[in-house]
Amino acid sequence: MQLDMNARGVFVIAPTPFAPDGALDLASTDRMVEAYLAAGASGLTILGIMGEAPKLDAAEAVEFTACVLRRVGGRVPVVVGVSSPGFASMRALARSAMEAGAAGVMIAPTPGLRGDEAVVSYIAQAAVAVGDAPYVLQDYPQANGIFMSVEMIRRMAEDPRLVMLKAEDWPGLDKITALRRLSEEGRMRRISILGGLGGQFLPEELARGADGIMTGYGVPEMLVRVCELMAKGEREAAQDLFDLHLPLIRTELQPGLGLAVRKYVLMRRGIIASDALRAPGPKLSAETRAEVDYLLGRLAARDPAVTL
Amino acid sequence: MQLDMNARGVFVIAPTPFAPDGALDLASTDRMVEAYLAAGASGLTILGIMGEAPKLDAAEAVEFTACVLRRVGGRVPVVVGVSSPGFASMRALARSAMEAGAAGVMIAPTPGLRGDEAVVSYIAQAAVAVGDAPYVLQDYPQANGIFMSVEMIRRMAEDPRLVMLKAEDWPGLDKITALRRLSEEGRMRRISILGGLGGQFLPEELARGADGIMTGYGVPEMLVRVCELMAKGEREAAQDLFDLHLPLIRTELQPGLGLAVRKYVLMRRGIIASDALRAPGPKLSAETRAEVDYLLGRLAARDPAVTL
Amino acid sequence: MQLDMNARGVFVIAPTPFAPDGALDLASTDRMVEAYLAAGASGLTILGIMGEAPKLDAAEAVEFTACVLRRVGGRVPVVVGVSSPGFASMRALARSAMEAGAAGVMIAPTPGLRGDEAVVSYIAQAAVAVGDAPYVLQDYPQANGIFMSVEMIRRMAEDPRLVMLKAEDWPGLDKITALRRLSEEGRMRRISILGGLGGQFLPEELARGADGIMTGYGVPEMLVRVCELMAKGEREAAQDLFDLHLPLIRTELQPGLGLAVRKYVLMRRGIIASDALRAPGPKLSAETRAEVDYLLGRLAARDPAVTL
Amino acid sequence: MQLDMNARGVFVIAPTPFAPDGALDLASTDRMVEAYLAAGASGLTILGIMGEAPKLDAAEAVEFTACVLRRVGGRVPVVVGVSSPGFASMRALARSAMEAGAAGVMIAPTPGLRGDEAVVSYIAQAAVAVGDAPYVLQDYPQANGIFMSVEMIRRMAEDPRLVMLKAEDWPGLDKITALRRLSEEGRMRRISILGGLGGQFLPEELARGADGIMTGYGVPEMLVRVCELMAKGEREAAQDLFDLHLPLIRTELQPGLGLAVRKYVLMRRGIIASDALRAPGPKLSAETRAEVDYLLGRLAARDPAVTL
Repeated sequence: MQLDMNARGVFVIAPTPFAPDGALDLASTDRMVEAYLAAGASGLTILGIMGEAPKLDAAEAVEFTACVLRRVGGRVPVVVGVSSPGFASMRALARSAMEAGAAGVMIAPTPGLRGDEAVVSYIAQAAVAVGDAPYVLQDYPQANGIFMSVEMIRRMAEDPRLVMLKAEDWPGLDKITALRRLSEEGRMRRISILGGLGGQFLPEELARGADGIMTGYGVPEMLVRVCELMAKGEREAAQDLFDLHLPLIRTELQPGLGLAVRKYVLMRRGIIASDALRAPGPKLSAETRAEVDYLLGRLAARDPAVTL
Repeated sequence: MQLDMNARGVFVIAPTPFAPDGALDLASTDRMVEAYLAAGASGLTILGIMGEAPKLDAAEAVEFTACVLRRVGGRVPVVVGVSSPGFASMRALARSAMEAGAAGVMIAPTPGLRGDEAVVSYIAQAAVAVGDAPYVLQDYPQANGIFMSVEMIRRMAEDPRLVMLKAEDWPGLDKITALRRLSEEGRMRRISILGGLGGQFLPEELARGADGIMTGYGVPEMLVRVCELMAKGEREAAQDLFDLHLPLIRTELQPGLGLAVRKYVLMRRGIIASDALRAPGPKLSAETRAEVDYLLGRLAARDPAVTL
Repeated sequence: MQLDMNARGVFVIAPTPFAPDGALDLASTDRMVEAYLAAGASGLTILGIMGEAPKLDAAEAVEFTACVLRRVGGRVPVVVGVSSPGFASMRALARSAMEAGAAGVMIAPTPGLRGDEAVVSYIAQAAVAVGDAPYVLQDYPQANGIFMSVEMIRRMAEDPRLVMLKAEDWPGLDKITALRRLSEEGRMRRISILGGLGGQFLPEELARGADGIMTGYGVPEMLVRVCELMAKGEREAAQDLFDLHLPLIRTELQPGLGLAVRKYVLMRRGIIASDALRAPGPKLSAETRAEVDYLLGRLAARDPAVTL
Repeated sequence: MQLDMNARGVFVIAPTPFAPDGALDLASTDRMVEAYLAAGASGLTILGIMGEAPKLDAAEAVEFTACVLRRVGGRVPVVVGVSSPGFASMRALARSAMEAGAAGVMIAPTPGLRGDEAVVSYIAQAAVAVGDAPYVLQDYPQANGIFMSVEMIRRMAEDPRLVMLKAEDWPGLDKITALRRLSEEGRMRRISILGGLGGQFLPEELARGADGIMTGYGVPEMLVRVCELMAKGEREAAQDLFDLHLPLIRTELQPGLGLAVRKYVLMRRGIIASDALRAPGPKLSAETRAEVDYLLGRLAARDPAVTL
């Protein structure tokens, strides 16, 4: 199964579960995969920024990828992040991921590129590095400091192996609209566009033409149902459901702390055994945990899909 | 009336209203002041980051300040932002604001300071520059790149003219808790702490010990009522009301676009005549305006205090 | 006298002399102007980054500009920096400078612009703001974080009022070569290109096709003579002279400290009365002053043009 | 042989030689090691920022380290860079380097740390991660955005395994003076301090109290002789020699381009076979190569130690 430009729905970005001592927790990984599929995920994404990928050594990255792919067993496509300081290691990562059964890889421009042409050229070289793999282009200026204009993305999309854009420029809704317009006018190849930004603009992203979302929000059931409701034209119901979850989304969006919150939510929901991050990483204070508990309690009381 | 360490409630950060041609709009300024006071504001803050202060010339800043102070007429304290590249101009701005009747001034560390000591020393020099004026210390690393630890703020607060902290580190809730704990343990002078960050963490900020909030959210009535409900211990009611507004808060938080959204909200609510920003500045797309209209419509249907 | 695309030679960037108490020192300003002209300056530039412009109030900027222009008395063109957060104040600054007799203004992209198009568009708007004034485009990514490609500069140069590029990208020599090649091939309007970067690449800049340099090195006599020697094809003699001065150039290039070193050099040479910077600003340690003295002593022993 | 606080002289930072196809070039590595030792190096440093370490996979890093250590054969201490996003991999890198015979490791604060305490705490954790290894603390704010004050370094130096500071804050000379003063006054453990910054302030660093320098300038013979001359009190002779090389040092300091220049110099001197960098990386233009050739020619004519 290879990722293609018709991909849609919710691609859940999976964290990497660790035991409290920092060891890979593959039992939690299996349980997490099942929970995401049960929630209705259309795909999974691993080893992205939220997967603590740089804290894994090469053997661990291979082991974790194999574990996820084995458990998924072809039920949904799995995208593997392969960002790397050198194209040689990007090539190695992409090859091993695709050989293990990944559906595609995800790449992003490296920090420090200067000017539009340098970014377009970097992505062209990265596309060569990942070989035959279909790839997702991640547009996330907050993380890497690289802005990609509509015109730049249009040019990059001339490569047929660029099948998906993970759109998380902030603000970025007008960019989704502009890209969709270009495709409708026949001036740009149509690609799959998934939103991001932790889910905080999901209804607007879908209304602007996104095909779904790729994010790691701790209650992906909501993302799936909002996509379904929007697809049926039930905007008010979608917004009602979304609004219930926005306080927790906001809590997960705090820079440097968000992943710890997300892992805590997954642990509280019984999906992973420990909310441990590998060092160096933040720890949640008792007050923060109590705030998350409070929000989860409110959600459980209002959204039948949320059980604790 | 001078600002002191007992200040509490909602200090609304006011934008600077312009006519479509960029001229100061003093009629809208008067109307805006009345709207904020009618909403229950405990104070106003002008010429901050959200007030397009760097786009005003010196005469305009004086004129706008005078207009606001005249209209307020001493009903609530007015804080004036005086950040400036040089201490000489900071001194001049602070003196003219206080002579015109301001209750205090707001200062922030300048970008590029290196190390904790340099920041503490900068603020000490700025405190000399603003003379006798009570001052608000703005803790806003996202805007200026300067981190201030709990210990640094404790030291700065040894100056009795530092009467208030505008707390908008992100994440910053644990910092509020730590500062309050220091004061309770007698190891730090108690100062007023107001939250910020566009209001997105208002219930948590208050629960952590903030005395209120200083922000410019376009529907400050909500901020006032959440403060009141929290003060009465009605946490659930406060959260219910807050949650209704969070989607619009989120829309106002988009970097580079937020002030344009906020001015559009104020215009739609009949408070200012035009949502014009001075150039260079963003313009809202038709799609974005429609999204804001949609959220305002939902709010009007759910919160009786919101009329359009 | 208006700046035009044939400008060449050494445009000295002048600091703003202050008395130890921070007051404008106009007597030193007069002496400094005469010293620069005696050194062979082809032009002067004032109120740039090195002129502490943001620390002057509007009246002081006008007074200083008038003082310099009066003293220059039309002997050489004077460029005035007009960068400003808003186009309204940029317009006012440019108009008052040109009315006072400036030969042109200098503009630079504002920090935070996203993508090539945003930069090109910003400069086009700034060009409107400065009205009829010929302008210098400053290409200085180290200071403002904005990269400008050869193609972007080519497009900007379609505006006939863009008469000069201050080229201080780092590294930037290949950019000078590429721009010159475009002009030779008839694909770009020829403009004046002056180097910068404190003078540290002067021989290479000239060899690549620059028409001179715009910088504030404390011994501008060297800059003038290197330009003359290079124009006569005496590369070895130019390099010999340049190499003598490179240690002092290097000392002036230290970020955050360079202007203090430069003012100290000018004071030691008897050109300005005090090396005071306006607060906040660095002070030279005794050790640093001794190091500068040592380098000046070596220069005086080796370069007959350097007297102390 | 373990690195200790008495280390002094020139520690040459070695690049990683590649064949034009990107493969590790171990023959050149051997030749390079011999050249550095022949030049008088007191130590070598590998896998630092200039060693393209992030572009090596784990097996290559081990292979290259083993090759260098085997060739050095205990003649001088070898320091291995072990910076890593996670402490787990830092631990693994440090252990394997020390087991292979390294004399110590080099660590630096990770980008994004907020406030002095966070930096001190990070280094304390990193020190635990590297186990028994003596370590070099790299102070290089330009590269990682982390400022370390004199007081912070004093506190870090309470750990006896911190044996050396690589001092390359810019400007940083007053910091060397302040650290030395603290040690002389008995308020700080004395550690080895080596300068850096490409060698551009070598005479001043030594005069301020540095024990030598750790940098990768392409003609390390000069660094060695300047250290010797300064140790003998021959400041003028040291400066004369240094000044000859400063133009080439300056050319090697260009951000993003410097390593390419340095490898080109080493290739031109017959030390490595190819100046190839791993992709993505810059290529020198013909003009830049000619400029380097010109400077090398001048050096060869003036400094008998430079042969081509």
